[in-house]
Amino acid sequence: MSRAQTVVGYTGYIGGLPSQVLAGKNVIATGMTGEVARCESAVESALAGRDTAVVSSGDAGVYGMAGLVLEILEKRGLLDRIEFEVIPGIPALCAAAALLGAPLTHDFAVISLSDLLTPWQTIVRRIQAAASADFVIVFYNPRSKRRSAQLAQALDIVRLARGETVPVGLVRQAFREGQKVGVCPLGAFDFQAVDMLSLVVVGNSTTRIAGGRMLTPRGYAEKYDL
Amino acid sequence: MSRAQTVVGYTGYIGGLPSQVLAGKNVIATGMTGEVARCESAVESALAGRDTAVVSSGDAGVYGMAGLVLEILEKRGLLDRIEFEVIPGIPALCAAAALLGAPLTHDFAVISLSDLLTPWQTIVRRIQAAASADFVIVFYNPRSKRRSAQLAQALDIVRLARGETVPVGLVRQAFREGQKVGVCPLGAFDFQAVDMLSLVVVGNSTTRIAGGRMLTPRGYAEKYDL
Repeated sequence: MSRAQTVVGYTGYIGGLPSQVLAGKNVIATGMTGEVARCESAVESALAGRDTAVVSSGDAGVYGMAGLVLEILEKRGLLDRIEFEVIPGIPALCAAAALLGAPLTHDFAVISLSDLLTPWQTIVRRIQAAASADFVIVFYNPRSKRRSAQLAQALDIVRLARGETVPVGLVRQAFREGQKVGVCPLGAFDFQAVDMLSLVVVGNSTTRIAGGRMLTPRGYAEKYDL
Repeated sequence: MSRAQTVVGYTGYIGGLPSQVLAGKNVIATGMTGEVARCESAVESALAGRDTAVVSSGDAGVYGMAGLVLEILEKRGLLDRIEFEVIPGIPALCAAAALLGAPLTHDFAVISLSDLLTPWQTIVRRIQAAASADFVIVFYNPRSKRRSAQLAQALDIVRLARGETVPVGLVRQAFREGQKVGVCPLGAFDFQAVDMLSLVVVGNSTTRIAGGRMLTPRGYAEKYDL
């Protein structure tokens, strides 16, 4: 990003960048639902010959802006004209997992509970599949002020497959101000604490709580003698 | 890691660290199947009062050593005595996705094809669930010299659900020497190029190839006018 002449991003993420990173750069910051306009501006800037960086929080490829920029380049027939590169980052799911202990040491599924751009029935089908095949599950966008029924329904599906004792982890604002981390059995899980700045991680059938942390064993204990 | 007095890791990863990082530290490097012994040494070192870092490639929580260390601490009743912290990193799945374009902008499942520590039937059940519920799928440990039938069988399951045209991406040695990146329809996919240093990413039913890259649209194009 140090090479970029223009930096484009959601106001909240731009505000979180150290000011020296943005010094001397043209900054385009837009609000919460301005994703398309934001990425269009980035493409316009690149078309004008400027090195342009679109910033995402976490990893730009995981529910991030990488796809939308590529889609706009494709739609406008610019794939050959504008160089496009994605820089990987630490996704929220890894930040959350680190704070929870070691929930992701075995196969896992990542599901967004936002039904703004995806039909709820598709999401339900995915939760059912992940729950029945014993994946650890990471829920993105678990609950907002206007959308709270989805998480309850998702956890009901998980409960059917794994019972009340499966460990559930909640991480809010991982490695940021206001960080909250909690682990408990599903039966004791408090919905009220969950918001859009949270991730919810549900263990698989072997996940247990160890020292207040989530631990999904990889299988070594059975194979080797610990 | 700069604070650590002892650094423990697989020989291959330790060798990849800049020498100044290891200067003045006690280094314990062991071979490929020495995971348990390695983590036991790390716990011994911490018990002796030394700040100890266990290094993993990618993210230590995704099929990494975080779980094994926590498991050993639990087994030995040391959870209260030894401070344990996981530092998140960029997982191989995000490095691969970045090089492939934008395959992970929607729900995805991560599955290891290694049946060394997991029964093959459990793995098959997960592939079937992920394929039928239209997850993008990331395959870790896709193929080794002694284990090549698993990937063929996994892709046969995917083919049943998504046909021959679903895009498949292969990334070998992401951001390392010997990096290889390829995208093609499943029908044209070459197994021979896949090894244990590779990740294979299979698109969902909406993933397409755009300018040689994998693009999973997030849904914006239907909802908004691009």
